[in-house]
Amino acid sequence: MKVLILPGDGIGPEIVAQAKKVLNALQKDGLDIELSEAPLGGAAYDAYGAPYPEFTQKLAREADAILLGAVGGPQYDQLDRPLRPERGLLGIRKDLNLFANLRPAILYPELANASTLKPEVVSGLDILIVRELTGDIYFGQPRGIRVNDAGEREGFNTMLYSESEVRRIAHVAFRAAQKRGKNLCSVDKANVLETTEFWKEIMTDVAKEYPDVELSHMYVDNAAMQLVRAPKQFDVMVTGNIFGDILSDQASMLTGSIGMLPSASLDQNGKGLYEPSHGSAPDIAGKDIANPLATILSAAMMLRYSLNNEAAAVRVENAVKAVLAQGLRTADIYEAGTTKVSCSQMGDAVVAAL
Amino acid sequence: MKVLILPGDGIGPEIVAQAKKVLNALQKDGLDIELSEAPLGGAAYDAYGAPYPEFTQKLAREADAILLGAVGGPQYDQLDRPLRPERGLLGIRKDLNLFANLRPAILYPELANASTLKPEVVSGLDILIVRELTGDIYFGQPRGIRVNDAGEREGFNTMLYSESEVRRIAHVAFRAAQKRGKNLCSVDKANVLETTEFWKEIMTDVAKEYPDVELSHMYVDNAAMQLVRAPKQFDVMVTGNIFGDILSDQASMLTGSIGMLPSASLDQNGKGLYEPSHGSAPDIAGKDIANPLATILSAAMMLRYSLNNEAAAVRVENAVKAVLAQGLRTADIYEAGTTKVSCSQMGDAVVAAL
Ligand SMILES: CC(C)[C@H](C(=O)O)[C@@H](O)C(=O)O
Ligand SMILES: CC(C)[C@H](C(=O)O)[C@@H](O)C(=O)O
Repeated sequence: MKVLILPGDGIGPEIVAQAKKVLNALQKDGLDIELSEAPLGGAAYDAYGAPYPEFTQKLAREADAILLGAVGGPQYDQLDRPLRPERGLLGIRKDLNLFANLRPAILYPELANASTLKPEVVSGLDILIVRELTGDIYFGQPRGIRVNDAGEREGFNTMLYSESEVRRIAHVAFRAAQKRGKNLCSVDKANVLETTEFWKEIMTDVAKEYPDVELSHMYVDNAAMQLVRAPKQFDVMVTGNIFGDILSDQASMLTGSIGMLPSASLDQNGKGLYEPSHGSAPDIAGKDIANPLATILSAAMMLRYSLNNEAAAVRVENAVKAVLAQGLRTADIYEAGTTKVSCSQMGDAVVAAL
Repeated sequence: MKVLILPGDGIGPEIVAQAKKVLNALQKDGLDIELSEAPLGGAAYDAYGAPYPEFTQKLAREADAILLGAVGGPQYDQLDRPLRPERGLLGIRKDLNLFANLRPAILYPELANASTLKPEVVSGLDILIVRELTGDIYFGQPRGIRVNDAGEREGFNTMLYSESEVRRIAHVAFRAAQKRGKNLCSVDKANVLETTEFWKEIMTDVAKEYPDVELSHMYVDNAAMQLVRAPKQFDVMVTGNIFGDILSDQASMLTGSIGMLPSASLDQNGKGLYEPSHGSAPDIAGKDIANPLATILSAAMMLRYSLNNEAAAVRVENAVKAVLAQGLRTADIYEAGTTKVSCSQMGDAVVAAL
């Protein structure tokens, strides 16, 4: 199996380096993977003049799975839109048809204090957000900035979902719910937007094939409220690209430790791009203080979903739990009574705990 | 001055009745307003076959200010889209050009326990969200459900903002920030959506006219995170219709007492529609247990913004503070050690405290 590593920008290289240590250790124990590396985002712009250059694209298409650090940084803010780091991320998602974004929001018992929410509201929190990732207003045409008939400038975008796009993400969400608490909440704004009225109709139709899963519907504004009020009411949530962008970030932050949360972006055949839910944190890049655990847990998701190696995935996840139990903490999750470690020390500790 | 009352659906009539008691008491003390009443939403559909019928429209256009309860209920869910209650709300907003929605999220010290967030994170919370209300994907054309060129069904909507639409809401937001903490955060998704890239450009331009206000920009996904992580960093937030729908509901819920939060929707000349931030709560309708304070505080906003009667507004707000200080609580904000009262008892108590 071919695994492509994309360190990216900011803290990307240092956190990915720790995940590589973990993968290398598993290789020594017999994990049969071949690693390669390429730039994405700002690093790719620096090296090749484009955020998702052909060099990276070729390796990405050949790979069975991809592990990404993060992209973006202030030095790229002035670039033309098509050259900016996030275009690399949107480009690879679309190019590889990675339509199913799985984002768990899990509260680790050891880190319960990190949440800004009261312990009774979030203890045991375990939500999976399934976000559609290659459609919606992110990619809809027409779009742009134009002068309208009245001679005035205006900005415009198109929200758009076809039936097949909604069906395939519905199936991913229902199957995920089957493996978990069998509750699926589909989030829409069907009272205002036809796109999501259509989304709701298709979800309801696909539900017939999953009689063991209970489907509910919620308006996106209410979902944003309920995630604050009583987040534990949710098991699996499924929604479109833009609502998923907002709600999955909100849900991650409920845990207070976004440095712990991995994500997977999958195509129809189980090929996937894995990355931490957090960003490239340019302010702390190069200081060896970032938390590599979300990236290491992303590697675990990769082992599970794309490399079909549940045993290795569990082994990595248990190693992460072990270092937490040992009291090791990077700066972002440090509290009195625990031991503060650097990014690379955390990586070494996970390898030792494997 | 002409004030139109729209009781609406669900708990609407009972909460509006309490606000009317307050207005009647002020009339006795010399407040010169003329009250009329009309149905909106489901109630209007029942009476006239349309959620925003001509009868209501005529009175609404003539009024200087409008006080609304809430609209919506399950009995209307099966109606055709143009007949549903929320169409009445969208209709009156658009008809009267009520483009500026002001939604305060304030934590009352007496109700600090009601929040699901830790006291240190939310104590003293006082955010004003300025949401554009008559543009964006809510009203953008084209929209609908169609069969595309490939023969497949798809749903679509148009996100759209013209320069003048962004400018006028920018001015409202900057002026609001001038009267408060002089910090304005404009929320967009400029890294993906041209509409909001354009929004950001115009905001930045308008900022030149308000050198005393500090303007910052934040992506909507990050804003949803920051509202959970550290909500007190915000003073005034300004954003488009759909992002504002989501973020203002999220922000209200941070207080844990959405039954306390009013809102105003204003046109260019100070005419406005005032309504509680919460919904029509059909499950508790008619039981005389709803919290009327958000509606009473909406009447206070009406006195301030549309009737230019700051003294009366403050008098009402102080009366609300007084009943809280007396320990009176409706069921939604009740906790041990306080006195539970009904909706109408709460209304009477506010009148007594005036
Ligand atoms: C960087 C940005 C384009 C991206 C998105 O909006 O999808 C990010 O916020 C994410 O959620 O992965
Ligand atoms: C009822 C609905 C159409 C409305 C909206 O989305 O604007 C409501 O959620 C609100 O925020 O007032």
